[in-house]
Amino acid sequence: MSSTRTIAESALLDLATRALQSYGLGPNDAHDAARVLVLADLFGVSTHGVMRVKTYGERLAIGGIDAKAQIKVDRRSPAIAMVDGANAVGTLVGMRALDAALEGARATGVGVAFARASNHFGPIASYAWLAAEQGFASIIGSNASVTIAPTGGTEARLGNNPLGLCVPNPGGDPVMLDMAMSVVARAKIRRALDKGESIPDTWATDINGHATTDPRTALDGILLPIGGYKGYGLALMVDLFAGLLSGAAYLTHVKSWVDEPESPQNLGHVFILIDTAKLGLADLAARMNDFAAILHDTPPVDEKAPVLLPGEREIARMKAQRQNGIVLDADVLAFLETRAG
Amino acid sequence: MSSTRTIAESALLDLATRALQSYGLGPNDAHDAARVLVLADLFGVSTHGVMRVKTYGERLAIGGIDAKAQIKVDRRSPAIAMVDGANAVGTLVGMRALDAALEGARATGVGVAFARASNHFGPIASYAWLAAEQGFASIIGSNASVTIAPTGGTEARLGNNPLGLCVPNPGGDPVMLDMAMSVVARAKIRRALDKGESIPDTWATDINGHATTDPRTALDGILLPIGGYKGYGLALMVDLFAGLLSGAAYLTHVKSWVDEPESPQNLGHVFILIDTAKLGLADLAARMNDFAAILHDTPPVDEKAPVLLPGEREIARMKAQRQNGIVLDADVLAFLETRAG
Repeated sequence: MSSTRTIAESALLDLATRALQSYGLGPNDAHDAARVLVLADLFGVSTHGVMRVKTYGERLAIGGIDAKAQIKVDRRSPAIAMVDGANAVGTLVGMRALDAALEGARATGVGVAFARASNHFGPIASYAWLAAEQGFASIIGSNASVTIAPTGGTEARLGNNPLGLCVPNPGGDPVMLDMAMSVVARAKIRRALDKGESIPDTWATDINGHATTDPRTALDGILLPIGGYKGYGLALMVDLFAGLLSGAAYLTHVKSWVDEPESPQNLGHVFILIDTAKLGLADLAARMNDFAAILHDTPPVDEKAPVLLPGEREIARMKAQRQNGIVLDADVLAFLETRAG
Repeated sequence: MSSTRTIAESALLDLATRALQSYGLGPNDAHDAARVLVLADLFGVSTHGVMRVKTYGERLAIGGIDAKAQIKVDRRSPAIAMVDGANAVGTLVGMRALDAALEGARATGVGVAFARASNHFGPIASYAWLAAEQGFASIIGSNASVTIAPTGGTEARLGNNPLGLCVPNPGGDPVMLDMAMSVVARAKIRRALDKGESIPDTWATDINGHATTDPRTALDGILLPIGGYKGYGLALMVDLFAGLLSGAAYLTHVKSWVDEPESPQNLGHVFILIDTAKLGLADLAARMNDFAAILHDTPPVDEKAPVLLPGEREIARMKAQRQNGIVLDADVLAFLETRAG
C-alpha cells in the first residue's frame, strides 16, 4: 500500500500536461489530453486518471502512439464528422471528436463524431461531463481489445466496450452512466487474486469458456458479460457504432496495447450529442430534479445507503476534491514530477 | 394449447388494418399502426404482434387511447423533431416519429425524434428494420410502466425500458439488438408459473425487494435488472432520453395500461437515426460481412449451436415466413376476422 498526496486540480493539470510534453506532445495537445485524465481523478476513477500518463508514455516512447500526430476532422454532413485520430494519444482524439460533435450539435441540434485510428481514450465520464456543462446530452462509446466471448462461443472476440449516456440538468447535476459490459472489471478480479480470495463463477470463465472461481484462471480467461446474450449484444453494438462505422478496427482486428505496445491499436469511438436547449422544454430543470427525487425517495434496502443515480458518487467526489484537492497515489505524482522535470 | 393457422403477410396486414379501423382509426393510420405489429409477427415476436390489436382495442373502445388523435410534429432544428402523439395508438406514434427522424437524418446526416403522449409502441425491431432497409443505423428507446426497483431500493420505480441498436448492411442483413433491461421477461416467469416450476432467485424479488424463487410472488413483485446497478442505470438513462427529454411522463408518472386502461399513459420514445451513406465508407458491406464472419467463426460451446448475432434468428424467421406465410394463433386470427367484419 503506497502513500497518498493531495494536489490542487490546476496544479495536477499543469503537471500532467508537462509530463505528456516530455514525450513530444505540443503544449496544446498535451493540455487537452491531460484534461480528460485529470477529470477522471476528480471523479475518483484513478484507474483512468493521470496514472495513465506512464502507460501512454511507454507507447509514445517506442512510437506505438504518435506524439506529433495530426488529427483530421472531415465534416461529411452538417451533423456528421469523421475524425482520423492518426494514432494520437486517445484522450486527445477523444477531445477533438467531442469538439467535432459539439460543432454539429450547435449547428443542427444533434452532432455525431466517429473517430478511428485512436487509442485508449480515458473514461467516458470526462467527455460526458464536459458536454453536460454546456447543456448537451450524450451517448458515447468506444471499442477495446478483446476480453469477452460471444454468447455460445468459447473464445474472446469482443472488447469490454464502454458505453456512456448522460443527460444534463440546468438546475443541478447531470445524470451520467459510464459502464462497460462485463459483470465486473478485471481490476476487481485482480483484487481478489491479491487477497487470495475465490470469485463467483458468474464473473469469468477460463480460456476455454468453462466457469471458474479462481481469479488467476479468470484473469487469463474470458470476462462474462452482464445479462448473458444481452451484454454480449450491447458490447457488439457498441463495436459496430464505435469501431465499424467509424472506419476503425473492430473485434479481433483491434490490437492489444499490452501484447503489441509498438503497434497502432486503431481503436474507434462514437460521440452522439444532443443540444437540450433546442428541445423547447421550459421546465427541464424541474423535471430533472423531480426525476432524481423520485429515485432518491425509494425506500432503501439499507437505511444508511439511500438510492443513488448513476454518476452521483463521482460528481460528489469531484466537488469535494475541487474544494480540498485531489488525493493521488504518491508514486503516481512522483512519476509525473520526474517527467515534468 | 390453441391451434395455429398460416396467413400471408399482405393478408395479415389487410386484416389487422381493418380490425383497427373497426375501433375508429382512419385507413392510413390503421395501416401504419398495423404494419409495426405485422413485422413483429414476421420476426416471430408474437407477444408484440397483431395479438395486441385486442388490447389496444379495449383501450380504444373506452377512450383510453384516442382513435382520432391528430399527431403533431414540431421540427425544432434541422436534426431534431418533437412529436406530440396526442394519445394515439403507440405504433402509429412510433411510425410518425420514425418518419420525422428519417427526415432529419436525410437533411443533416442524423435525425432525432422525441415522442410524448404515446402508448405501447410494439417492438423496437420493427422500426429498426424499416430504418435499416433504407440504410439508416438506429438507436431507439421507450419508457414503460414501472416494474423494476432502483439498485438499493425496495420499490419498483422504473420501467423495464426497451432499447434497440441496429446497423444496416448494404450487402446483407442488418445487425439488430432489441432488448429490455430485466434478466428475463415477465412472460418467462409466467411460463414457469403455468408449468408449476420454481425460478432462479436472480430473476425477480417479492413486492418488498426480497429474493424469491416462486413465480407467483415474482409476478406480483419486482423484476431484477441485468448486471445489477448497470441494468438499473441503463433503464434509467433510457427513461431520461425517451421519457424526460421528450416531454412525456417518466418513472412513476407513467400510467399502467393494466391498472388504468382508461387513462392516457403519456409514454415517451426516442428515435436516433444515422445515414450510413453519409459516412464515406466505401467498404461498409465488406466490413459488415467480415464482422459477422468473425463472430460466426467463434468455436462454439455446442457444435450444433453456432454463435449468432443479435437479430439473426428473427430475420431468418422473417424470411421463412415471407415465403411460407406467417404462423399465428388461430384464436388471434379469428378475433381479427370478427373485428374486420
